[in-house]
Amino acid sequence: MRHDHLISANQLTREDIEAVLDRAADIAENPAAFREQQAGSVLALCFFEPSTRTKMSFDTAMKRLGGDTTDMGSVESSSVKKGESLADTVRVIQGYADAIVLRHPSEGAAKMASEFADVPIVNAGDGAGQHPSQTLLDLFTIRENAGLDDLTIGIMGDLKYGRTVHSLASALTNFDARQHFISPESLRLPRSVRFDLHEEGAQVREHTDLDEVLSELDVLYVTRIQRERFPDENEYHKVAGEYQIDLDTLDAASDDLTVMHPLPRVDEIAPEIDETAYATYFEQAHNGVPVRMALLDSLLTHE
Amino acid sequence: MRHDHLISANQLTREDIEAVLDRAADIAENPAAFREQQAGSVLALCFFEPSTRTKMSFDTAMKRLGGDTTDMGSVESSSVKKGESLADTVRVIQGYADAIVLRHPSEGAAKMASEFADVPIVNAGDGAGQHPSQTLLDLFTIRENAGLDDLTIGIMGDLKYGRTVHSLASALTNFDARQHFISPESLRLPRSVRFDLHEEGAQVREHTDLDEVLSELDVLYVTRIQRERFPDENEYHKVAGEYQIDLDTLDAASDDLTVMHPLPRVDEIAPEIDETAYATYFEQAHNGVPVRMALLDSLLTHE
Amino acid sequence: MRHDHLISANQLTREDIEAVLDRAADIAENPAAFREQQAGSVLALCFFEPSTRTKMSFDTAMKRLGGDTTDMGSVESSSVKKGESLADTVRVIQGYADAIVLRHPSEGAAKMASEFADVPIVNAGDGAGQHPSQTLLDLFTIRENAGLDDLTIGIMGDLKYGRTVHSLASALTNFDARQHFISPESLRLPRSVRFDLHEEGAQVREHTDLDEVLSELDVLYVTRIQRERFPDENEYHKVAGEYQIDLDTLDAASDDLTVMHPLPRVDEIAPEIDETAYATYFEQAHNGVPVRMALLDSLLTHE
Repeated sequence: MRHDHLISANQLTREDIEAVLDRAADIAENPAAFREQQAGSVLALCFFEPSTRTKMSFDTAMKRLGGDTTDMGSVESSSVKKGESLADTVRVIQGYADAIVLRHPSEGAAKMASEFADVPIVNAGDGAGQHPSQTLLDLFTIRENAGLDDLTIGIMGDLKYGRTVHSLASALTNFDARQHFISPESLRLPRSVRFDLHEEGAQVREHTDLDEVLSELDVLYVTRIQRERFPDENEYHKVAGEYQIDLDTLDAASDDLTVMHPLPRVDEIAPEIDETAYATYFEQAHNGVPVRMALLDSLLTHE
Repeated sequence: MRHDHLISANQLTREDIEAVLDRAADIAENPAAFREQQAGSVLALCFFEPSTRTKMSFDTAMKRLGGDTTDMGSVESSSVKKGESLADTVRVIQGYADAIVLRHPSEGAAKMASEFADVPIVNAGDGAGQHPSQTLLDLFTIRENAGLDDLTIGIMGDLKYGRTVHSLASALTNFDARQHFISPESLRLPRSVRFDLHEEGAQVREHTDLDEVLSELDVLYVTRIQRERFPDENEYHKVAGEYQIDLDTLDAASDDLTVMHPLPRVDEIAPEIDETAYATYFEQAHNGVPVRMALLDSLLTHE
Repeated sequence: MRHDHLISANQLTREDIEAVLDRAADIAENPAAFREQQAGSVLALCFFEPSTRTKMSFDTAMKRLGGDTTDMGSVESSSVKKGESLADTVRVIQGYADAIVLRHPSEGAAKMASEFADVPIVNAGDGAGQHPSQTLLDLFTIRENAGLDDLTIGIMGDLKYGRTVHSLASALTNFDARQHFISPESLRLPRSVRFDLHEEGAQVREHTDLDEVLSELDVLYVTRIQRERFPDENEYHKVAGEYQIDLDTLDAASDDLTVMHPLPRVDEIAPEIDETAYATYFEQAHNGVPVRMALLDSLLTHE
C-alpha cells in the first residue's frame, strides 16, 4: 500500500487491499516475527467518541508490533474543553507521535486532520462517514472463510445508517462478489450508495426477506437495528424481530455459511448460534489485531 | 501454581500460595532478572468499577515483567453502554490479550467470564465476592513481617461486608494461625463465613473490644468501617471511633506488632502511627507489584 | 542537574537549565540514541486535573526513552473518591513507580507530595503555582530560535493569573534578557512577581500597548485572556480584542520575530499567522517531548 493516510475505503485499490490482507495473514501465522517491527514508534489514540474494540485492537496491534501508544483520553479530560480547534489539537499531537488514529463525531474530520499532519492519519470512524480499518478486517475475515472471489454475500439489518455496510459494499466492488441487501423498507441502502455501486458495476439485489436468498449465501453479514431509528417502540420490535436470526432461521442455509457481525450485538443473533460453525463474528473481531498490525506497519514503514 | 484462572482465594492450596509467594520474594529481591520475562505479552485491564491501587499495581506489574497492557477504559467510554453483554465483551477482548484482569460489580462475574475465555482470567473483585490477588499480597506481607506459621492475627473493623477479610480468613486456614475477629456486634463476620472457617478447623475467636486480645497479636489487620452501612450518622461515629487506633491504643501491643490495612484508609489509623515500626500498610500496598508479577508470570507461563 | 524533585522553576540555576537544554538538544538531534535509556523504568502519571498536551508529552517522552508509564486515571475513577488523602495516594503510588508526574488543583501540592515520596516528583502544575517543565520547554524554544542572551522578549496577555508567565519571567532572570510585559491594566503582573523580578535585577518594563515595543522584540510570547476573568462580557471582548494578533499587527515587527504561545489558543493568534515564519507555537509544543525526555532522564539517572 502506498498511501500517506487511510481516510476512506474508497481510496483502496484491489492491490492495496490484497497487500494489507497478505501481510495480515503473515502476521496471524507468525506474530513473533513482527514483535520488534515498530520498536521505538509511538501511535497516538485520539478518540473523540467512545470505543472499546476499535481502540483496544489498535492499542494491542501497536504493542504487538513492539511499538507503544499514547492516549488523548476522553474529551472531558482534554484541551478540547478549553475551546481548542481540532486542527490545533492535531497539529500538536502529530509532533508527539509517529501516526494518529482518529475517531470523531463529524464526517470529514479525518480528511481535515490529514491536511494538518505530517504523520499518517488513520480514520477510525468519522460520524456517518467511513471506518476503513473495519472494512479491511471484514474483507480479511471473508477471504479466510469464504474467499473474496465468486462470493455471494448477504448484508442484513440497518443498511441506511451503517457506515460499516457502506464501506464494505464499496470495497467489495473490487472483487467478483454478488451482493444481496436485506432490510426493512425504511432502512434500505441510501439512494446515493446504490447509485455508486451501480456505477462501479456491482452485482446488487435488494430484498425485504432473508428467505428469498439465504440458501445461496456464502456469507451473511448481520448488523444491528438501532431502537433510536424508530419513533415508535412497537414498530421497532416488529421490524427488528424479522431481522434476527437463530438456529431455525439458518435451517435453509448452506452448511458452509459464514455469519458475521461488526459487534456489539444486542439480540440480532441468538446466543445458540455462538457455538456453531456458522459463528464467525468473534473471529472477525479478533482479526482486528493482525489486520491493524498490517495496516500500521505499512503506514509506518517508509520503504 | 497449576490453574487456568484465579477466581477465588478458596481455590488455592497451601502449595499454590507458597509457590506464588516464593516467586514474589525472588522478584522483590532481584526485579531486574524478570525484566524481559513476559516480553511480547499483553494484559487486558477490564475495570467495570473504579480502582486506583489494584489497577495501577497490575498495570505496573505487567510492565515490570516486560509485557504491556491494554485498558478497556471506563464503562462510560465503552461498548457496554451500547447494551453488550459481559460474555460478549470478554469473548472479544480475550482474542486481543494474553490474559484479562477483571473487576465487576456483580458477584460471580469473573467465574462467568472464565467460562468464555481461552486466556487466564484474574478476578480483581466481583462485588461482595472475592479479590484473591489482594489476599496473596496480604499473605506475602504477613509472611515477610510475622511469618505465616504460629501466627496470632487480629482482624478488625467491618467484618460483615469486607470481601478482603473473608478471603484472608479463608486463606489463613491453610496455615497454623489463630484468628481473632474484632468488630461491633452489627458488623460481625457473617454466619456463613464463620461456618466455613469452623468446617476448615480454623482457630477462631470473636471480640467486640480490641483490648481483650491486643497484647497477644503478631498482626493487627484494620479495615475501614463505611459510613453508608449506618442509617444514623451518630451511631456511625460512636461505633467507628471505637475501632480507630492511635499510639495510645497500641501501648498494650507487642513491640513487634505488624499493623496492616488494605487501604484506602480514612481515619481508622491515626497518621502518628505512619512513622512507627508498626506501620506496614504502605509496604503492604507496594507488595502488590511483586506479588502480581509472580501471579501473572505463573498464569502466563505455560511450562 | 542535581535535584531530587522538580517543584518550581525557581530552584533551577543557569547551570541546571543549560544542562537540561543541552541534553534536550542532543535528544532532538539523535533520538534513536536514547531509545533504551530508561528501559525498565515506570513513570506514574497522576493528573488530578484535565490535561492533554502536558500529559501526552510526558507519556510520549517516557516511552521514547524506552520506559513505560502507569496512569492514575481521572479522579472520578480513583480512590480519591473514597476519601483518601493526597499524602496517602502519593505514598502508595511512589512504591509502584520510579518517578511521579503530578498535576493538582492546589498550590503547594507537589511540594507536599515530595515530602512523602522516595522517588522524584515532577510538578506538572499546582493550581496558580508552578509548572516548571513548561518553562524549560519555553526556554529551549527561545534558545533555539532567538538565543537566551542579549534577548528582548515581550510577554503579552493575562499576566496576572498565568503561572506559565510567572515561571518564565523568573527563569529569564538567569540570562541577559530585557523583558517587556504587555497587558490591560486589570491583568498586570502581580505586585509580588514584579517585586521578585526587581530583586533579581531583571530588566523589566510594562506596557498596555504592543506597538510601543513590538519593533524591538526578538520573541513575542502570547497568552490567552480567559473570559472567566471578566464579570462583563462586553468588557472581555473589548480587552481581549486589543491583545489579539494578526498579519497586520506584525507589520511593524522584525522579520526574525519568534511568536510563541503555551497553547491551547482560542483566538489570540489569527490562523493566517500559522503558515508564516513567525509561528513557533507548534514547534514549542513539540519541544515538550525532547525537553521532558531530558528532564526525566536526568531525574531518573543516578550517576
